[in-house]
Amino acid sequence: MAKILTGGTIVTALETYQADIRFENGKINAIGFFPAQASDEIIAVDGCYLFPGGIDPHTHLDLAVGATRTADDFFTGTKAAAVGGTTTILDFATQDKGKTLQEALQVWHQKANGKSFIDYGFHLAVCDLTTSVKVELSSIAESEGVTSVKLYLAYKNTMQVDDAALLEVLEISKKAGFLVCVHCENGDLIDSFVKQAQAKGQTEPKYHAKTRPAFVEREATARAIALAEFARAPLYVVHVSSQAALKEIAAAKSQGLAIYGETCPQYLLLDESAYEQPGFASAKYVMSPPLRAKDNQEFLWQGLSQSLLATVGSDHCSFNFAGQKELGRQDFSQIPNGGPGIENRFGLLYTYGVMAGHLTLNQFVAVTSTNAAKLFGLFPQKGTIAVGSDADIVVWDPAVRSIISAAKQQQNVDYNLYEGFRQIGAPRYVFLRGEKIVAGGIAVEEPQGKYIKRQRTR
Amino acid sequence: MAKILTGGTIVTALETYQADIRFENGKINAIGFFPAQASDEIIAVDGCYLFPGGIDPHTHLDLAVGATRTADDFFTGTKAAAVGGTTTILDFATQDKGKTLQEALQVWHQKANGKSFIDYGFHLAVCDLTTSVKVELSSIAESEGVTSVKLYLAYKNTMQVDDAALLEVLEISKKAGFLVCVHCENGDLIDSFVKQAQAKGQTEPKYHAKTRPAFVEREATARAIALAEFARAPLYVVHVSSQAALKEIAAAKSQGLAIYGETCPQYLLLDESAYEQPGFASAKYVMSPPLRAKDNQEFLWQGLSQSLLATVGSDHCSFNFAGQKELGRQDFSQIPNGGPGIENRFGLLYTYGVMAGHLTLNQFVAVTSTNAAKLFGLFPQKGTIAVGSDADIVVWDPAVRSIISAAKQQQNVDYNLYEGFRQIGAPRYVFLRGEKIVAGGIAVEEPQGKYIKRQRTR
Amino acid sequence: MAKILTGGTIVTALETYQADIRFENGKINAIGFFPAQASDEIIAVDGCYLFPGGIDPHTHLDLAVGATRTADDFFTGTKAAAVGGTTTILDFATQDKGKTLQEALQVWHQKANGKSFIDYGFHLAVCDLTTSVKVELSSIAESEGVTSVKLYLAYKNTMQVDDAALLEVLEISKKAGFLVCVHCENGDLIDSFVKQAQAKGQTEPKYHAKTRPAFVEREATARAIALAEFARAPLYVVHVSSQAALKEIAAAKSQGLAIYGETCPQYLLLDESAYEQPGFASAKYVMSPPLRAKDNQEFLWQGLSQSLLATVGSDHCSFNFAGQKELGRQDFSQIPNGGPGIENRFGLLYTYGVMAGHLTLNQFVAVTSTNAAKLFGLFPQKGTIAVGSDADIVVWDPAVRSIISAAKQQQNVDYNLYEGFRQIGAPRYVFLRGEKIVAGGIAVEEPQGKYIKRQRTR
Amino acid sequence: MAKILTGGTIVTALETYQADIRFENGKINAIGFFPAQASDEIIAVDGCYLFPGGIDPHTHLDLAVGATRTADDFFTGTKAAAVGGTTTILDFATQDKGKTLQEALQVWHQKANGKSFIDYGFHLAVCDLTTSVKVELSSIAESEGVTSVKLYLAYKNTMQVDDAALLEVLEISKKAGFLVCVHCENGDLIDSFVKQAQAKGQTEPKYHAKTRPAFVEREATARAIALAEFARAPLYVVHVSSQAALKEIAAAKSQGLAIYGETCPQYLLLDESAYEQPGFASAKYVMSPPLRAKDNQEFLWQGLSQSLLATVGSDHCSFNFAGQKELGRQDFSQIPNGGPGIENRFGLLYTYGVMAGHLTLNQFVAVTSTNAAKLFGLFPQKGTIAVGSDADIVVWDPAVRSIISAAKQQQNVDYNLYEGFRQIGAPRYVFLRGEKIVAGGIAVEEPQGKYIKRQRTR
Repeated sequence: MAKILTGGTIVTALETYQADIRFENGKINAIGFFPAQASDEIIAVDGCYLFPGGIDPHTHLDLAVGATRTADDFFTGTKAAAVGGTTTILDFATQDKGKTLQEALQVWHQKANGKSFIDYGFHLAVCDLTTSVKVELSSIAESEGVTSVKLYLAYKNTMQVDDAALLEVLEISKKAGFLVCVHCENGDLIDSFVKQAQAKGQTEPKYHAKTRPAFVEREATARAIALAEFARAPLYVVHVSSQAALKEIAAAKSQGLAIYGETCPQYLLLDESAYEQPGFASAKYVMSPPLRAKDNQEFLWQGLSQSLLATVGSDHCSFNFAGQKELGRQDFSQIPNGGPGIENRFGLLYTYGVMAGHLTLNQFVAVTSTNAAKLFGLFPQKGTIAVGSDADIVVWDPAVRSIISAAKQQQNVDYNLYEGFRQIGAPRYVFLRGEKIVAGGIAVEEPQGKYIKRQRTR
Repeated sequence: MAKILTGGTIVTALETYQADIRFENGKINAIGFFPAQASDEIIAVDGCYLFPGGIDPHTHLDLAVGATRTADDFFTGTKAAAVGGTTTILDFATQDKGKTLQEALQVWHQKANGKSFIDYGFHLAVCDLTTSVKVELSSIAESEGVTSVKLYLAYKNTMQVDDAALLEVLEISKKAGFLVCVHCENGDLIDSFVKQAQAKGQTEPKYHAKTRPAFVEREATARAIALAEFARAPLYVVHVSSQAALKEIAAAKSQGLAIYGETCPQYLLLDESAYEQPGFASAKYVMSPPLRAKDNQEFLWQGLSQSLLATVGSDHCSFNFAGQKELGRQDFSQIPNGGPGIENRFGLLYTYGVMAGHLTLNQFVAVTSTNAAKLFGLFPQKGTIAVGSDADIVVWDPAVRSIISAAKQQQNVDYNLYEGFRQIGAPRYVFLRGEKIVAGGIAVEEPQGKYIKRQRTR
Repeated sequence: MAKILTGGTIVTALETYQADIRFENGKINAIGFFPAQASDEIIAVDGCYLFPGGIDPHTHLDLAVGATRTADDFFTGTKAAAVGGTTTILDFATQDKGKTLQEALQVWHQKANGKSFIDYGFHLAVCDLTTSVKVELSSIAESEGVTSVKLYLAYKNTMQVDDAALLEVLEISKKAGFLVCVHCENGDLIDSFVKQAQAKGQTEPKYHAKTRPAFVEREATARAIALAEFARAPLYVVHVSSQAALKEIAAAKSQGLAIYGETCPQYLLLDESAYEQPGFASAKYVMSPPLRAKDNQEFLWQGLSQSLLATVGSDHCSFNFAGQKELGRQDFSQIPNGGPGIENRFGLLYTYGVMAGHLTLNQFVAVTSTNAAKLFGLFPQKGTIAVGSDADIVVWDPAVRSIISAAKQQQNVDYNLYEGFRQIGAPRYVFLRGEKIVAGGIAVEEPQGKYIKRQRTR
Repeated sequence: MAKILTGGTIVTALETYQADIRFENGKINAIGFFPAQASDEIIAVDGCYLFPGGIDPHTHLDLAVGATRTADDFFTGTKAAAVGGTTTILDFATQDKGKTLQEALQVWHQKANGKSFIDYGFHLAVCDLTTSVKVELSSIAESEGVTSVKLYLAYKNTMQVDDAALLEVLEISKKAGFLVCVHCENGDLIDSFVKQAQAKGQTEPKYHAKTRPAFVEREATARAIALAEFARAPLYVVHVSSQAALKEIAAAKSQGLAIYGETCPQYLLLDESAYEQPGFASAKYVMSPPLRAKDNQEFLWQGLSQSLLATVGSDHCSFNFAGQKELGRQDFSQIPNGGPGIENRFGLLYTYGVMAGHLTLNQFVAVTSTNAAKLFGLFPQKGTIAVGSDADIVVWDPAVRSIISAAKQQQNVDYNLYEGFRQIGAPRYVFLRGEKIVAGGIAVEEPQGKYIKRQRTR
C-alpha cells in the first residue's frame, strides 16, 4: 500500500518547494500534484518540512574500549538516532590486531543484525595492515559493499598506523573503489605529552585537552593531505575540530585536491571551557579531538556554509559518567574517550545552523545527509528526496520547542552533552523505506533496519 | 493542456533518475509515476536526458561597439540559443556615459521586447558612477528585478571604472541585494601595451593577445577580490581565462570568501595558437581576455569540476569577419572584440565536458544552468527540474552526432569559432515554460520569451 | 693629518670587535692595532661603540607642499641629522608636472648646495612620465649618479601615477641601473574615502587615518609587487606601516623576488591612539601612511630582525603645528602631511631596537645604515667601517641618558613626535669623511656635506 | 712573529676591499695600511682574494656504517679539506643506542685528536632520547661547547627518532642554548618503498633514488618546521636537495620563523640522470637525499642568493667504489650511503657560484663560511676577516685553472663525484690561526687542528 505525504515543503540539498510525495514498496514513486489511488494512505503534513532522512557518517555502537564497552549498542543507539531524525548510520567495524577484515565485519554484522531501527553500513577501521589485509582491501568494496576505510594517526600502540600504511591504503583505494577516512592527530606527540603530564602529576580531565592541542591535529591533517596528494587519491578527514586543521583542508581544496572534511556538533557548539567545570564532571567532555577554544566555532560554521567542510557526524561513542568515565578519576588517560550525540545531531544542526542563520535549509540537508550519501556510495538511494530513492523521510515540524535533557533522551547513557540546550523543531514522523518508524517522538517496537551494501566511490 | 514527458532520464545538479515529468501552465507539477489525465499529451522521450534549460549568464546582443553593431540581435541570437539548448540568457544592459540606468534599461527592453525566443534578464553594466546612479543602484534590484551589476576594470576611457567605483558598488550591493560582476583585466596596463605595440608597428591580430597577457587578468582579479574582501561583499568574476586568475579565486575561496568565477567554452577549448593563423584570419579570435596558452585548459576544467569555478557563459558577442572584424586590418586595436558561441555553449560542454570525462552529468547541469540561476536570483524558477519550477526542459538525445559549422548555424554571423568540432548529442525538443520552442533543430516562428524580474541575491 | 680613534668597539652589519681606526684624507686606512705616526691625532673613545654613520634613505627637506613649505630646509634638517648620528641622507628631488628631471635635479642641487652638514644624494620622484622623461631616465643613473626613482600610487591628481607608468619605469630600471621605489597606497580609494568623509562633515584629523586604512596600503603593495614580478625587476617599498603590507612583501621574498621594504620609527613606536588626542593636537600625527593599530608594531620589529624589512627611514617632512598643520583646522585633508624625525631615527632605533632586545647591534647597523648603502649604490663608500671606506663614523656613548623634547632639538619645527621618550646613548662625536662635525651634541658651524654620485644598483 | 699579507683583496660576507692583513699569535691584529715591524714576515699576495677559511658544517669522518667504515678518517679528510680551502669542519659525533652522549663525544675526540689538519667541532647526533640523555642535553652546550644537536627523521630502526623526540629536543634547545639540526626525509615511507622495490626485484642503484622521492623530503621538512613553530625554537635543515623542500623553508621564513637551510654541492651541480649510468657505476651517487631532477638546481642557487638557504655543507661521507659501494651489488639498500666532497666544496662554489653569476663574492663567503660560523657559535672567532678573529685565511689565486679528478685528489677514496669538472681559482696558501698549512696545493706534514668549544647559539 502506498502512502502520500501531502501539504509539506520538500527540502533537498538543491531545492525547497511544496509538493506531495507518494511512496510504495519503500521507494518514492511520485512527487508533485497527481491523482491519488483509492488505496493510498493520505498523511497530511501541512506546515512541515520534508527532509531526507539524516545520515550519520560517524558512530561507534557496541564498541569495546579497554575493559569497558560503549553504553549504547545498536538497539539503543539506532533507536535514539531514529527518534532524532537519522535513518542511516555508518558505524566503524574495527579490525583487531592479528585478525582479518572479514572477522571484523562478521563481528559487526552480529552486533547489528536484527537490532537496528535504521539502515546501516560499515566503515572498516584498519589497525594492522598485513599483506593479507591488503589483499582483502582490494576486493572489500565489491564483495562486501564496504566502500570506506578508516585509519588512525593517533592512539599509539593500539590503532595508530604509520605514514607508510596510510599511503599504501590510499594507493589501494584508487583501484578498489573505496574512500579513505583518517583520524588526524599526531599520536606520537600525544603519547609524549600524556607521559609528561603524568610525570608532573597532572591527572584531571582537563589535561586530556592540554595533551592534544590543536597543533597535533593540524600537523596530522597536513601530513595526511600530503600523502593523499602524492597518491592522487581522495581523502576524508573525520571530526575536524579546529580552525588550524580546517585551514589545511581549505588550502588543499584551493589546489584542486579532493579532500573532504567532517565536523561534529560538539565542535560547533561546545568549547574548552567545559574542562574548567569543577571536580570530575568535565570527564563527560573527554573525547578526541578535545573541545577547542570558542573562536574556532565560527570558522567551522563558515567551513560548512562555504563547502570547505562536507559533513557533520556525531562521533557518538557514549560512556556513562557513573562507572565508565569514572575509570579515569585517578588519571585522565584512563577515561574512555567519547561522548553521546547520535540523537541530537540533526536537531542541533537545524536549530543552531539553520535557525541561527549559519546555514540555509539546503545546506542543512547537504551536511546532515546528502553529502555523506554522495561521498560514501549511498546516493541516490539515500540522501535525497527524489523519484526512485528510498522513502527515508523526516517530517519535521518546525513549530515544536523543546529542551535537550538526559532525562528525556533515548540514548542509553546517563548524561547529555547538550543538557539544557533549546531545540527548535522536531520530527513529527520518521519514515524508513516507507515505514513509519517514529511518530510523535516514539519509535516502533521492532527494529527494521537493514545492512546497506554501498557502491564504489569512484 | 498538460504535457507528460515519459521515458526520459532526469538530470539535475544533484540527481540523475528515471521518471516522467508532467507540466501544465508553464510549470512542472508532477515528477515520477502517476496516472495521466485523459487530456494530457504524452510525449515519449525514451533514451533521452531531460536537462534543465541552459542559462547563459553572459551575452551581448544588439550591442553597438564603436561604429559597428553586433551581428546578432535578440531575434537571431536567442533563436540560436534556443536551438542549442539554452532557454534563458542574461544580457548586459550598458549605461552610456551621462545617461541613467533607467535609460539603459529602457533601451535594452526595446531591443528585446517581442524579439526573444527565450526568457531573459539584464545585468546592468555601469560605466559612470555618478551620485544619481548610486541612488538608482540602491533600488534597482527591488524595482526592476535587476539583481546583478557589472563593472569593467578594462577598456580605459570608455567603460573602465576605477577601484573606488568598484568598492562603492560593492558596498551598495550589500543593502540593495544585487551581485557585483567584474571584468578583470588591468585597463591601464593594456592601454599602455597597445600604444607600445602600435609605436613598434605591430598591427596584426596576434598583438591583441600579446598586449593582454594573463598577468593583467591575474592582477585585476586579485585586486577585485581584495576590494570584495574589504567590503565583505560577494563578487562574480566573468570570463576567467587563465590558471593565474583561477588561482587567485581559489585562494580566496579557501579563506571563506564568497568569490565566484565564470569561464567560457573558448577558454576551455581554444588556445593562443589560433593567433598564429596566417593573414588576417586570426581576427576571428580577437576577444577579451584573449585565448591563452593551451596548458591553462586543464586547470579551467578542474576548476569547474572542483567548484572553484561556478558557471560557463558564452560571452557571445558576434561580429562578421567580413566588414566588421576587417575594420582592424590596419590596426588590431580597431578589431571589434568578441566572438559567437551562444548556440554552441551547451553542446560543447556536454561533448567536451561530460563525454570527455571532465564533468559528471550533474556538474554539467550545475555549470550550464543551476549555478547561474542560484547566483543571479532565478532559482528555483529556472535552473532545475522540480515541481513548481518553470518547465524549461531540454530533451537531449545523446545518440545524435554532428559537426559544428557556420554553414549550418542559426547564429547570424559568418563564421563559427568551433568550425569542424564534433558534437555528441543534440536537443530533440526544447521546452520554454511548457511550450515546445524547438523540435528537431528547428525553432518555432514566433518569439515567446519574456523578461524575468529576478530575486534579490542576498 | 690622520686621526686614530682608540679604545672603541667597532660595530658593522657583520661584526662587533675592539680595534683602533685610523683615517686620513677622509678615508679609513687602517683598523686594528698598529704603530701611530707622530703626526696622528689620537682620540680616545673608550667605552664607546663606533658605528658607521647613519644613512637616512627617506627625507623631504625644503619641500613645497601646496601653499606651504617644510619647516626644515637642508641647513636645519641636515644639522639635526648630524647631531642625531646620521651622515648621509637621500632626499626626494620631485619632478613638477610638465618639467624635466634635469630641472628637478637642478632645483634640488640649489636647495642643498653649500647648505648641507652631511653628504647627500637624490632620489628622483617622477610624477609625469612623458616620452622625454623616459629618455632622461635611461641615462640618469650614469650621468647624474641618481640610482633610485620613486613613484607614488597615492596622491591622486598630483603625484599619483598609474600602473602602466610604474611598469614602464620598472622596465627601464633594468637597463638603466636604478632601483624603483614606490609609495604604496591606493590613491583612487583614498580620494573616494576622503570625499565620503567630507560629505559627512568628518573634518577632524583622525579622519585622515580613517580614510587611509591599512587595506589601501596592502592592496597597493600587492599590486606593485605583481608589477615588479612581471617586469623581473627589484622594487623598494617605502614606509611600510602595517602587518598586512609586510605580509605581501614577505610572501614575495619567499618566492625569491627581490622586494625590499623600509619602515619608519613612527610606525615602530607610535600608534593610532594618537589620533584620539583631544582638539586639533592630533594633526601632528597626520602623515601618510597614518599611524596604525598598536599590534602592527611587533610584526614590523620582527620584520626588521628577520630581514623581511631592509631599512628604517625617517620620512622626515616637518611642518610646524602653528600656522602649518593648522591649515587643516576646518578640514583634515588640508593638513600638510608629514612629521619630523631626521634627528631621532638613529637614537630611537638604538634605544627601542637594540636596548629593548628587538635587534642585535649588527642588525641595528644594517637597518640604519648598511642596507640603505647597499641598495642605493653607496656601498662600500658609505654604510660600513672598513679600510677604504669614507670615515663616516658615529662615536656612540652608550652611557648617556636623555629625554627627547622639542625644546632641545635641532629640528626647526615646533614639536617632536617622540616628546618625552627616553633615549639611551648619544653620539659623543660624529665624523664625516674624517672631519669631526659634531661633538657633545654641538654641530660645527660650516656645512661640509657633498653631493654623492651613486653607483648603478645592478 | 707576525705575518703581513700584502696586495690582496679582502672579501667578507659584507665587504670587498684592498688592504693588508697582519696577524700574530694566531689572530688578526691589523687590517689596512700601516707600518710593518722589523720582524714581520711580508707575504705578497697581489692579485689574490683573501677569503675567510671555509667552514664545512656537515662532514662524516671515520664513521662506521654497518659493517664498513668511511674511507676518510680525520687525517685524510681534513688534509683534503685544507687543500681545498676549508679550515674548520663540524663533524657528527653519533650516539649509539644505549650509550650516553659523553661516550659519543669521547669516541669522536679520540678519532680527531692529533689527527686533524684543521680546527673542528662536533654536532651531536642523538638516536636514543632517554631520560638521562635529556639531562645531558641540557648542559652539553655549556660544558662541552657542543652547540648543535642533530636528529634524523629517516633511517628507520637505526637512527630515526619520532616526532615527540624532535619536539622534546627543540624544547630543551631553547634553554640549553644549542641549535637543532634535522635530516628531513620520512623514514617510514622510505622503509616501505624500499621493501616494495625489493619485493619487485628492483635491485639496481637507481632504485635508491626512486624509493626516496622529493615528496618524502618535502613532507618531513614541513613536519619539522611545524614542530619548530610549535616549540618556538630555531631549526636547521641539513642537505636540502629539492625545490619542494626549499619552498617549505621559504614559506616558514616569510612568516618570521627562524628556519635555516643547508644545501650541498652535489644538489647544486649533479642530477638524477647520474643514476642512469650503465652497470653498477651509479652506486657512486647513492646518497641521501638522492640526486634530484635537474630543474631543482636553479631554485637551490636562487635560494642561496636570496638568503632562503644559509649554508653549503659537503655532507662528505666517502666510501670506495671498490669493496665498499660494491657491498650493494645485489641490493641497492646495502650500498653505503654517501659521497666525497670535503675537498671540492669551496672551489666548486667559487667556480659554479661566483664565476657563473649565481652568487656575489660576498654571498660566496657567506654560504661557505660566515653563515655557518654565526649559526653554530663560531663567530667571530671563525667565519670572517676582522681584527681579533682567528687568522684562518685562504689566499685564493683566481688565475689558476684545473680539472677535478680522483687521480689528483687528497681525499682517500677511489672516485670523485665531480670527475672532469673544471675549477677556476685555487688556494695559493691556506692559513690556520696564522700558520701556513697549505702552500701550492701541498699541506704541511703535521696536523695542527684543534677542537673548538663553541658558544651558545642563543
